[in-house]
Amino acid sequence: MTDFFKDIEPLNYDPSSEGLAFRHYDADETVMGKRLADHLRFSVAYWHSFAWEGGDPFGGATFERPWHPQDDMGRAKMKADIAFEMFRILRVPFYCWHDADIRPEGDSFAESRDRLDEITDYFGPKMEETGVNLLWGTANMFGHRRWMSGAATNPDPDVFAYAAATVKSCMDATKKLGGQNYVLWGGREGYETLLNTDMGRERQQAGRFLQMTVDYAKKIGFDGQILIEPKPQEPTKHQYDYDVATVYGFLKEFGLEGEVKVNIEQGHAILAGHSFEHELALARELGILGSIDMNRNDYQSGWDTDQFPNNVPEVALAFYEVLRAGGFTKGGTNFDAKLRRQSLDPVDLIAAHAGGMDVCARGLKAAATMLEDGTLEKMRDARYAGWETDAAKSMLSGDLESAAARVEAEGLDPQPRSGRQEVLENIVNRFV
Amino acid sequence: MTDFFKDIEPLNYDPSSEGLAFRHYDADETVMGKRLADHLRFSVAYWHSFAWEGGDPFGGATFERPWHPQDDMGRAKMKADIAFEMFRILRVPFYCWHDADIRPEGDSFAESRDRLDEITDYFGPKMEETGVNLLWGTANMFGHRRWMSGAATNPDPDVFAYAAATVKSCMDATKKLGGQNYVLWGGREGYETLLNTDMGRERQQAGRFLQMTVDYAKKIGFDGQILIEPKPQEPTKHQYDYDVATVYGFLKEFGLEGEVKVNIEQGHAILAGHSFEHELALARELGILGSIDMNRNDYQSGWDTDQFPNNVPEVALAFYEVLRAGGFTKGGTNFDAKLRRQSLDPVDLIAAHAGGMDVCARGLKAAATMLEDGTLEKMRDARYAGWETDAAKSMLSGDLESAAARVEAEGLDPQPRSGRQEVLENIVNRFV
Amino acid sequence: MTDFFKDIEPLNYDPSSEGLAFRHYDADETVMGKRLADHLRFSVAYWHSFAWEGGDPFGGATFERPWHPQDDMGRAKMKADIAFEMFRILRVPFYCWHDADIRPEGDSFAESRDRLDEITDYFGPKMEETGVNLLWGTANMFGHRRWMSGAATNPDPDVFAYAAATVKSCMDATKKLGGQNYVLWGGREGYETLLNTDMGRERQQAGRFLQMTVDYAKKIGFDGQILIEPKPQEPTKHQYDYDVATVYGFLKEFGLEGEVKVNIEQGHAILAGHSFEHELALARELGILGSIDMNRNDYQSGWDTDQFPNNVPEVALAFYEVLRAGGFTKGGTNFDAKLRRQSLDPVDLIAAHAGGMDVCARGLKAAATMLEDGTLEKMRDARYAGWETDAAKSMLSGDLESAAARVEAEGLDPQPRSGRQEVLENIVNRFV
Amino acid sequence: MTDFFKDIEPLNYDPSSEGLAFRHYDADETVMGKRLADHLRFSVAYWHSFAWEGGDPFGGATFERPWHPQDDMGRAKMKADIAFEMFRILRVPFYCWHDADIRPEGDSFAESRDRLDEITDYFGPKMEETGVNLLWGTANMFGHRRWMSGAATNPDPDVFAYAAATVKSCMDATKKLGGQNYVLWGGREGYETLLNTDMGRERQQAGRFLQMTVDYAKKIGFDGQILIEPKPQEPTKHQYDYDVATVYGFLKEFGLEGEVKVNIEQGHAILAGHSFEHELALARELGILGSIDMNRNDYQSGWDTDQFPNNVPEVALAFYEVLRAGGFTKGGTNFDAKLRRQSLDPVDLIAAHAGGMDVCARGLKAAATMLEDGTLEKMRDARYAGWETDAAKSMLSGDLESAAARVEAEGLDPQPRSGRQEVLENIVNRFV
Repeated sequence: MTDFFKDIEPLNYDPSSEGLAFRHYDADETVMGKRLADHLRFSVAYWHSFAWEGGDPFGGATFERPWHPQDDMGRAKMKADIAFEMFRILRVPFYCWHDADIRPEGDSFAESRDRLDEITDYFGPKMEETGVNLLWGTANMFGHRRWMSGAATNPDPDVFAYAAATVKSCMDATKKLGGQNYVLWGGREGYETLLNTDMGRERQQAGRFLQMTVDYAKKIGFDGQILIEPKPQEPTKHQYDYDVATVYGFLKEFGLEGEVKVNIEQGHAILAGHSFEHELALARELGILGSIDMNRNDYQSGWDTDQFPNNVPEVALAFYEVLRAGGFTKGGTNFDAKLRRQSLDPVDLIAAHAGGMDVCARGLKAAATMLEDGTLEKMRDARYAGWETDAAKSMLSGDLESAAARVEAEGLDPQPRSGRQEVLENIVNRFV
Repeated sequence: MTDFFKDIEPLNYDPSSEGLAFRHYDADETVMGKRLADHLRFSVAYWHSFAWEGGDPFGGATFERPWHPQDDMGRAKMKADIAFEMFRILRVPFYCWHDADIRPEGDSFAESRDRLDEITDYFGPKMEETGVNLLWGTANMFGHRRWMSGAATNPDPDVFAYAAATVKSCMDATKKLGGQNYVLWGGREGYETLLNTDMGRERQQAGRFLQMTVDYAKKIGFDGQILIEPKPQEPTKHQYDYDVATVYGFLKEFGLEGEVKVNIEQGHAILAGHSFEHELALARELGILGSIDMNRNDYQSGWDTDQFPNNVPEVALAFYEVLRAGGFTKGGTNFDAKLRRQSLDPVDLIAAHAGGMDVCARGLKAAATMLEDGTLEKMRDARYAGWETDAAKSMLSGDLESAAARVEAEGLDPQPRSGRQEVLENIVNRFV
Repeated sequence: MTDFFKDIEPLNYDPSSEGLAFRHYDADETVMGKRLADHLRFSVAYWHSFAWEGGDPFGGATFERPWHPQDDMGRAKMKADIAFEMFRILRVPFYCWHDADIRPEGDSFAESRDRLDEITDYFGPKMEETGVNLLWGTANMFGHRRWMSGAATNPDPDVFAYAAATVKSCMDATKKLGGQNYVLWGGREGYETLLNTDMGRERQQAGRFLQMTVDYAKKIGFDGQILIEPKPQEPTKHQYDYDVATVYGFLKEFGLEGEVKVNIEQGHAILAGHSFEHELALARELGILGSIDMNRNDYQSGWDTDQFPNNVPEVALAFYEVLRAGGFTKGGTNFDAKLRRQSLDPVDLIAAHAGGMDVCARGLKAAATMLEDGTLEKMRDARYAGWETDAAKSMLSGDLESAAARVEAEGLDPQPRSGRQEVLENIVNRFV
Repeated sequence: MTDFFKDIEPLNYDPSSEGLAFRHYDADETVMGKRLADHLRFSVAYWHSFAWEGGDPFGGATFERPWHPQDDMGRAKMKADIAFEMFRILRVPFYCWHDADIRPEGDSFAESRDRLDEITDYFGPKMEETGVNLLWGTANMFGHRRWMSGAATNPDPDVFAYAAATVKSCMDATKKLGGQNYVLWGGREGYETLLNTDMGRERQQAGRFLQMTVDYAKKIGFDGQILIEPKPQEPTKHQYDYDVATVYGFLKEFGLEGEVKVNIEQGHAILAGHSFEHELALARELGILGSIDMNRNDYQSGWDTDQFPNNVPEVALAFYEVLRAGGFTKGGTNFDAKLRRQSLDPVDLIAAHAGGMDVCARGLKAAATMLEDGTLEKMRDARYAGWETDAAKSMLSGDLESAAARVEAEGLDPQPRSGRQEVLENIVNRFV
């Protein structure tokens, strides 16, 4: 045990506590026939909590952790020790990483890969001991300067090759650790200016790369989900995986809609002009909802703020869509959330996650109660009841002319009916 | 001749004029082997110029035209007389309409359809006489209260039927007038709140409706393009045809990507978080670029301002993408632009269009010069030259492992090369 | 009694009700020593609920109320009858109007004024009978085409005169009805384009107009608050009363910061890039917080959506700032909120307001509990405790050099301390 | 001479050049009676061109300059050598710096100050030799972790003291080098969350700090302008110097409106929801226009992209407002612009600045021609001509009642007149 978190004990469920405890998250509480923990499947993001040093575009590191500077395998292991201590304190069942979060880059690809092997070997017993599993692994193909013009979509084929090698090594490591998903976020797969960009070529490269990734997963018997994480922009001006609808079109174009799903983040949804629940509902309808990143953006900021969730009604609407999709299978609720840069202390890390977990627990329980209550569903079904008649079904499979003919024959003049939005919002407010 | 435009004569090309004339648009100028008029294929939007009365969400009509109120077929014909006078003054080859722009709604569908027949019969000789053609027709399925919850996506199947009848009548009229395209803008095909919305069902309705429209066009031998006009929102909170990428995914889902293209508007692109040229370039790469609405949004306003284009460098980048796509075939440059509400006078209508036409002429000529110069293309090709080698091509059709193996075998360490964005922007500035 | 609201009875407080009732708003509940009703001082906006017909920029009226068309004094009185029936059902203590909401425009200014007199005379006994008071009156100087280029800031001095006459008549009527505030929202006091705008001149006109308004209020003994309602834009491209900070600078420039306060709306704050609580906190610090419009904007829409509040945690943070300012004196909580256009039914009007009142009640009670708990205040004070020392105070009243000298003399190297944002957010979540 | 820029010679004015040359900027060209160089007063920003290493929130340094790492005085001098070589190549008359750009931070404040003295002593002869002057100096009080919670507005008075010492040292150095302005950008003077913020106290601290700065400038006889640079947010959630209107209110509150002006940046204007020309026009009307940062933001990105200007019509409208304000006195045109992160090569630095200078030259010349032409001014004056009558002037200095009385007496019914926006935009397009 390090002394980083000093004497902070694993958190308990204690609704009346004003200290470090869960006031709403009781892992073993049964909701809709399932443990709350099994619904939520919480995961900590290694990068924000352990690799990010507190810098922003206008200022340097603020955190000064004992494992800084992060250029040494010894300190990478100390970082891992502390990370698992945090997982234990938070009693989270999962965590996630990029290769670059967990091991320093080597002088060559081979050395980087060796280090990845070494650190994931170091993780193995810790996972065993704590029971913490890997929700997903992924490759950081945006931080190093080699990726500045993209990874799979780079104008330089050698960078494509390097990306291939990197994804291979990360998927190998994910499989080794029993990861349940493999995620691709294309932070540099887009462009800064169309003037220097061959968009057609780059999209083909991206499509091929994704196919190669899917093929490799099959070949090695990786049975987790492969997920794309949409984001519209930042750091690029335009990112090819803009939002759920865009990713769906891309998957269809390359025939991969049955192989790849999405990992949806609230902050990315907001940046793309959508509500979180929209992206979740759309992914559900398209059959590609895989997992979520539960971190909010500040509505008044135009960049990715990656804050811990704190608004229960919003989170409830998100989990409502997740539950309507049947809940998570291999996916989960990853906190892709970072401390505010001024939150320097180890206790801030614990409090931030605990608060986020409580907010999610409240949200999910509210969503479950809404579904069990059934009023929303009944009202929604009633609104479309006309479509359940045979005449309507037959019209839908018919043609324009016959539908038109009926309008004239019957002198149809359909009258609008109230959409009841405020009533429905009031109903939601009974539960949140 | 009415006296609405008083003694305004058809505009001539006169670069030194300070009055009403084209200073840059010479219809007969040859650019890249084609008349400027044939490149640009200008079109006036009937709705903004003749049906909109100058209201906005906070105020009523300001225009007080002689054809107001627009509830009478006699005044509809007066409006048509004046519209064709404007087309003649502007020497535009095309115009566009919604049914609701050109005839008052009747007391029944049949009466509405009859009036549509009557007014389009009235248009025929005028088109003959002036040589002005119909770029596209479309149905207004968003203005009347019956459409408040959608047309094809309405919870009430009778509204779907009414929409079918409406599209049928508008496509019939479009064909009768020799229209070169038929456009669908789904202004109410989306939702106000997910709480009352069955998104899956609504998307299926939309897909079927589009298929029925395509089928009907074939049946009657309409050989124009069928175009969807993407817009992310407004009036709805979310519109299903969000942007080009979303429409593409939708077309792929319903197997219509070979039948339907897009009509792209700058203002809608902006609202969706994209540059106009992005949407154009993407549609080109996806093979679905059909036509454009050339009207800008104010970058500081969050709603559709539909202003006449006035920024030549921006317009040049748009036409650059259009030219790279091979230019328009059946599509054109429609001014889906409205006067500012304070621009009350008939002369404002003429000046606004003339100014927009000049801006487009300058933009298109600049774009052509850029392409003929070829520097941008050469630099872009050079950037991707590495992908032209056999090794690179073979890697692209290979697998992850062989690419990875080469990285280790050769100790690859690809070095970044300058993307040259500022140099490229300087080159563009030579031409605009 | 009309039969508009049929048999809807005045709403009661009934936490377990699933029908039309208040589940959280108990007017007589005591919070921080005051009745909840006296804290919240709810007000209904006449315009959205009774004058707006359900149109939007892409569609016409949907509502079809019995008092339509609104061009007749008889129907204006029917509208008033129904409005007061709604106030009685909702048990709200206040309402608000623009002149244009309550009487049809006359053929001359004199006739319009006479009608205003007539309808406000009609209101008097109704207010007496129901006990409903006027929170504020205001003039609609943006709807009619005469205002299209501004009211006080119009290029035409006759319009300025017309605006003066209009404000005089509205303030007279407000005083007659015992209104507690008079509000100015300058919906057209701004510009569409700088190219035709003499901003210096227009700002001077606005300053003089405000001074004249203040002088007139004093002269007639109107002892209510005079309030400016900031909004950044829409319908104009730029509105001079952009946000609280801008209004403050304007008041300082014209020496009116002691005479005029602000009426802050959540939706307008959002459009200006601020959180609602920011605008409230700033107004409090500047001593100009007057009243609030409690209606949210959709965060994903770029125009004023004027929706009923439905997010308790957000509303709690707003009332937290109001309570920290000492609560309302003459101000109140006005629902400047409109039904969604699809919410056609009379019951929607009742349900929307009742839901909003419940959300506000929950928010205010949560805010009061936060303040009574005091943890947030204690932590905030502790953060600034260093400034309470004599040395710090003396430095603050000293000069740059002596502060600088101490840095070198003492070798100061101040160390950052955690800002505790997540912990504070967790504390808020205990109460909301 | 270092070999960083290899054999790049100082740029000449050569309109036909396709290489490194000015195609539009002829320093000695006379415009409105003044040399173009004296109008534009170009300045290079030391930070973006020499201190920024090419990182962004998702990736590390890309540039790898010979003066990296920047932790050594020797390399700081090499950086200075190269910077002045660039100034010579670009023939710019000015440059700007923060203390942190030009010298590495020392182990103590005293060492940091000594290094500032040393490097500015090193600059002196270079400025003499090249004729390049200092447009402004400023202090970086946002990068180091000590500033994470603000400088003057910090909860810790020791940080305020450190800020005082820092500003004193930077103003001393600015004066020593003959700087013409001293700028304050409060990048951390704002808040991340209101929950931990005492806004009233922080605003008072900021007001006092500014007064102390003004006092110190007077004391040491610094006769340059003192400028605040507004920005709405980023890195903070809210920055106290939000925009020009906010800064004006702040100056009025603290009685400093005669002492301090603003340095306006296009990118910051955009982030605040304004056009650049709006901020310039407003500052002109308020008498506080000091200087400009000429760098654009990408309209589709929600953060500060600090790109070189490339749109001539936009730049022309900005310089039109500057010229209407009488042009710069001590201010100038600073390129607070950075290379795109992928623009790695030294030649990119030269090309980017040269392109920006050409765009500004075109813009300023267009603006001058517009003013000399006078049509815009004539049309604007004509629009307000009614206000030049004695009756109108007397109304403006009168009261509400007499204006109102005239409306009724004369039966006034003012008719709207066209605002001519499109015609005015066409006129602008004659010149750009």
